[in-house]
Amino acid sequence: MKKYAVIVAGGSGTRMGNVIPKQFLLLKGKPVLWYTMDSFLRAYDDMHIILVLPKDHLKKGEKIINQLNAEGKVSMVEGGNTRFDSVKEGLKKVENEAVVFVHDGVRCLISVPLIRRCYNQTIEKGSAVPAVAATDSIRIVKNGSHYISDRQQVRIIQTPQTFLSNIILPAFEQAYSDDFTDEATVVEAFGSPVYLTDGEYDNIKITRPIDLLIAERIIEDRSAF
Amino acid sequence: MKKYAVIVAGGSGTRMGNVIPKQFLLLKGKPVLWYTMDSFLRAYDDMHIILVLPKDHLKKGEKIINQLNAEGKVSMVEGGNTRFDSVKEGLKKVENEAVVFVHDGVRCLISVPLIRRCYNQTIEKGSAVPAVAATDSIRIVKNGSHYISDRQQVRIIQTPQTFLSNIILPAFEQAYSDDFTDEATVVEAFGSPVYLTDGEYDNIKITRPIDLLIAERIIEDRSAF
Repeated sequence: MKKYAVIVAGGSGTRMGNVIPKQFLLLKGKPVLWYTMDSFLRAYDDMHIILVLPKDHLKKGEKIINQLNAEGKVSMVEGGNTRFDSVKEGLKKVENEAVVFVHDGVRCLISVPLIRRCYNQTIEKGSAVPAVAATDSIRIVKNGSHYISDRQQVRIIQTPQTFLSNIILPAFEQAYSDDFTDEATVVEAFGSPVYLTDGEYDNIKITRPIDLLIAERIIEDRSAF
Repeated sequence: MKKYAVIVAGGSGTRMGNVIPKQFLLLKGKPVLWYTMDSFLRAYDDMHIILVLPKDHLKKGEKIINQLNAEGKVSMVEGGNTRFDSVKEGLKKVENEAVVFVHDGVRCLISVPLIRRCYNQTIEKGSAVPAVAATDSIRIVKNGSHYISDRQQVRIIQTPQTFLSNIILPAFEQAYSDDFTDEATVVEAFGSPVYLTDGEYDNIKITRPIDLLIAERIIEDRSAF
């Protein structure tokens, strides 16, 4: 089946205390987004990437596409004001009869096996959302109070959130709701079930400065083999 | 007030796929536990550490105490079968009128400011449990199904879980329950409130091999300043 990876890289990077948005920060000399896109391109020869970027950064995106020699395999799309709008813009480039991966651009350590696992489960069940078990105790804070949550029941959700096109495309025709915190919540609100799959602990999101150091260490370690 | 840090290092290390338990693995040439204990000793001159270890590892603990030149500032105690039993053994060495920190031995990146914040809040409120907000979406899995949890409400719990001795000592006299997943749950079950405080994102627990690499990178970064 056709394969589209909608890679959302709309962040302005303010949390990093950095002028350069985090998706363009360098890891061992290459931008964060380079690693993200490289993994999707390596997973399947017929992968097509839809890169969603803020208008001001489309030029930077083009440069990375050139670095990857991926002209013809990547479309660029201008993002919207919210994550929902940005994904919706990206989905306009998706054809029917496809598997659609929606991925955070700053999850640059995404592995080829995880991408393939998401694809296979989506073919079988219609969706695949990677999740890992919590390793720490979790508390839920509510109305100024808080209570323990059973750790065995807590899953930390990652991307790529993966769906058949005939599930995700109509789901994104719904009116926007503040409850849409990721693609899984959009699909559920539309009435389709979402199936989890095993994520990977090192499929981290580059959010804080320390995450860049961590990612660099993991990349060093991977290239040692 | 008197200060006791009960450092629990009872793990057998099987999750690391390693014969050496993780609390003794080397980070830049020093054992994980060395870093943990060093932070507590640096936080307060009158800190007393109660190091809880499995019987077979007491010798290794002694070696680290020597490396730290901390003879007289550390007592060693043999751990029990469960976390609850191990902490309970450690608490036997605690005197009244004290602040008691209970800390995971494998959280070796614990900072001096966090230890002091826990102390100050405990003096003021009776307890301090460090917690950080979740940065990813969280789902709760129940009865084969799962649902999204409001990310704003989710807190990831860390250690040192810190209490006045007159709160934690009687709480640990209760009969053991499977609901006791950490010290906070023991204290709550005894009827005392537990107050959260801001944790730190790099106060990680060495659980998987990748965590060792991450910790090494953070230590390198810290020593660069």
